[in-house]
Amino acid sequence: VDLFPTELWARLSARLFRRATPGNLGYGDPAGYPLLREAIAAYLGESRGIRCDPGQVLIVAGSQQGFDIACRVLLDPGDSVWVEEPGYLGTRGALLAAGARIVPVPVDGEGLDVAAGINQQSMARMASVTPAHQYPLGSVMSLPRRLALLEWAGRSGAWIVEDDYDSEFRYSGRPLMTLRGLDQEGRVVYLGTFSKVLLPSLRLGYLVVPPGLVDTFLAARALSDDSPPFLSQAVTAEFMAEGHFARHIRRMRAAYADRRAAMLEGARRDLRGIMELPPDETGLQLVGWLAGGLDELNACREAAESGIDMRPLSAYRLLPSDRPGVLLGYAAFSPRDIRDALRRLGEALRGALRRS
Amino acid sequence: VDLFPTELWARLSARLFRRATPGNLGYGDPAGYPLLREAIAAYLGESRGIRCDPGQVLIVAGSQQGFDIACRVLLDPGDSVWVEEPGYLGTRGALLAAGARIVPVPVDGEGLDVAAGINQQSMARMASVTPAHQYPLGSVMSLPRRLALLEWAGRSGAWIVEDDYDSEFRYSGRPLMTLRGLDQEGRVVYLGTFSKVLLPSLRLGYLVVPPGLVDTFLAARALSDDSPPFLSQAVTAEFMAEGHFARHIRRMRAAYADRRAAMLEGARRDLRGIMELPPDETGLQLVGWLAGGLDELNACREAAESGIDMRPLSAYRLLPSDRPGVLLGYAAFSPRDIRDALRRLGEALRGALRRS
Repeated sequence: VDLFPTELWARLSARLFRRATPGNLGYGDPAGYPLLREAIAAYLGESRGIRCDPGQVLIVAGSQQGFDIACRVLLDPGDSVWVEEPGYLGTRGALLAAGARIVPVPVDGEGLDVAAGINQQSMARMASVTPAHQYPLGSVMSLPRRLALLEWAGRSGAWIVEDDYDSEFRYSGRPLMTLRGLDQEGRVVYLGTFSKVLLPSLRLGYLVVPPGLVDTFLAARALSDDSPPFLSQAVTAEFMAEGHFARHIRRMRAAYADRRAAMLEGARRDLRGIMELPPDETGLQLVGWLAGGLDELNACREAAESGIDMRPLSAYRLLPSDRPGVLLGYAAFSPRDIRDALRRLGEALRGALRRS
Repeated sequence: VDLFPTELWARLSARLFRRATPGNLGYGDPAGYPLLREAIAAYLGESRGIRCDPGQVLIVAGSQQGFDIACRVLLDPGDSVWVEEPGYLGTRGALLAAGARIVPVPVDGEGLDVAAGINQQSMARMASVTPAHQYPLGSVMSLPRRLALLEWAGRSGAWIVEDDYDSEFRYSGRPLMTLRGLDQEGRVVYLGTFSKVLLPSLRLGYLVVPPGLVDTFLAARALSDDSPPFLSQAVTAEFMAEGHFARHIRRMRAAYADRRAAMLEGARRDLRGIMELPPDETGLQLVGWLAGGLDELNACREAAESGIDMRPLSAYRLLPSDRPGVLLGYAAFSPRDIRDALRRLGEALRGALRRS
């Protein structure tokens, strides 16, 4: 949020609102503002290797709404759905509301374990995944796994919801093809968001829907909501069209790379023997594996007493695990704040270990 | 839309965005921007006789989303729900998605016929009504009917969703107490929108929830969506707090009263013997009852050929009716355009009658 070009955005807002036509200000196109849909289709083509028509892009009020619409369209009560274990539990409410049976499928260093999913419940109707950067573990789904997942979906007629929530933040190497980009059979619903790359308070995200499902998704969307406010959509479209978006991403990526480097360096210095932070090439947070017998909840409590907000991995699990870990977000803090925080964290956790 | 103070709004937007704190720009309070919730509670107290705490006001992305959340919270699959017949069919999708059985209850000059509803399905779980200005017929629910509806809901443990979508536009007389204002037992969920009084493209509305249900509504809201964009909420709050809102309503009410007068006067002159428009003290559209054997669909087709968009009442009905009528919206047109249109409409319909 501190890196956001507030002044430019305020100027664009005022300009676009003054120029708005009565059509813009009335009930808009429920699929979203056409120029924004075009800008997103172009961006996905260039940056994510996704070829899609703007007609397949539906603007929604963030990934949560996009996921909820997908559940309403694609699931019948009683359908099984693979979710990542551990994973983002924000999807659970929408799944339960759709009457789905949740099947937690383990995640390892290659992402969701497709073979394990098939073993557990081969007839699942949907798989919900974060292949670019698994949330919360951070693993990137390997190409063989991606192909296996697509193969399973094509064979069993299942749907894949690919949540690409933070793919803009990759610090080295080239990203793998998205599932949507690899998908030959129209099984993938792709979910993107502007919450991470622009602002959470914009409340803007998008779905890229398989061609045959556009009308059904639109009808489901209309049950609960119309397209987001004109102004947020129009300013974002202009921001993208004028090249500010690409510049903003580059600036944020550089800043986050510094913050990430401060994390890894600070952890090497201050958390040795207490917590191991595997470097991770993308994203806005890092997993810390606890060593020396520290317990997740205790560690988080100690951290909170030193003013540090870290979350136990059990908060992302549906099943028990014997490997204690925590999630550390760094995107919102300066390198100096990060270094200070890790020093305090190291002292607090070492104190806790001594007392235990 | 043509009456909207675009320049003022653009200025407020830019100002508030520049002043926004990181907290404002991050993920906001899922219940909505606190200052907007306060402004709405104050407005409802002054203008609609509703005493509520800002904590009971939830900001949503328009009435459709508010209604959908209410259905998700209050209904179980198989529950019966009274809907007005004729009525706003936009609610039907959300009801069907919640697995509800829809019970169409007739509307007359006093609004929903509560006795008929009790006869048809006394154990309904919810009634969805537009008491201030029935959509589409325009009747105002009488006080005895309001009390009977509340009495039924209290006795049977049913919920009432009161959609007060255009209550700001009352041209004479004093409004009746809202159901929410009369409700002693916390059975009423009140639904308001800024789409009519400000702009549809703002995508802002609100629910006033019974005190005991606030947390449940918030949890259901979180399934599908967070609070609307900060900027729309903040500008609306400022617009209300600075007195622009009250002024804007007065201006719109005066303009709409002129437009309505042009409708009634033009209809007396040009539609005599073809269509009867009962004057109606509130709202943004009028019902025209067709006379002389004209059929709804034919009449609408003839109108469309003269460039006039009117809708057959059958578009709002679930049951057949033997009284043909149409709905004429006038809010978006100048008195001169209205007079011209009614002249063309009179000629077209008279021609159709001669040919039939």
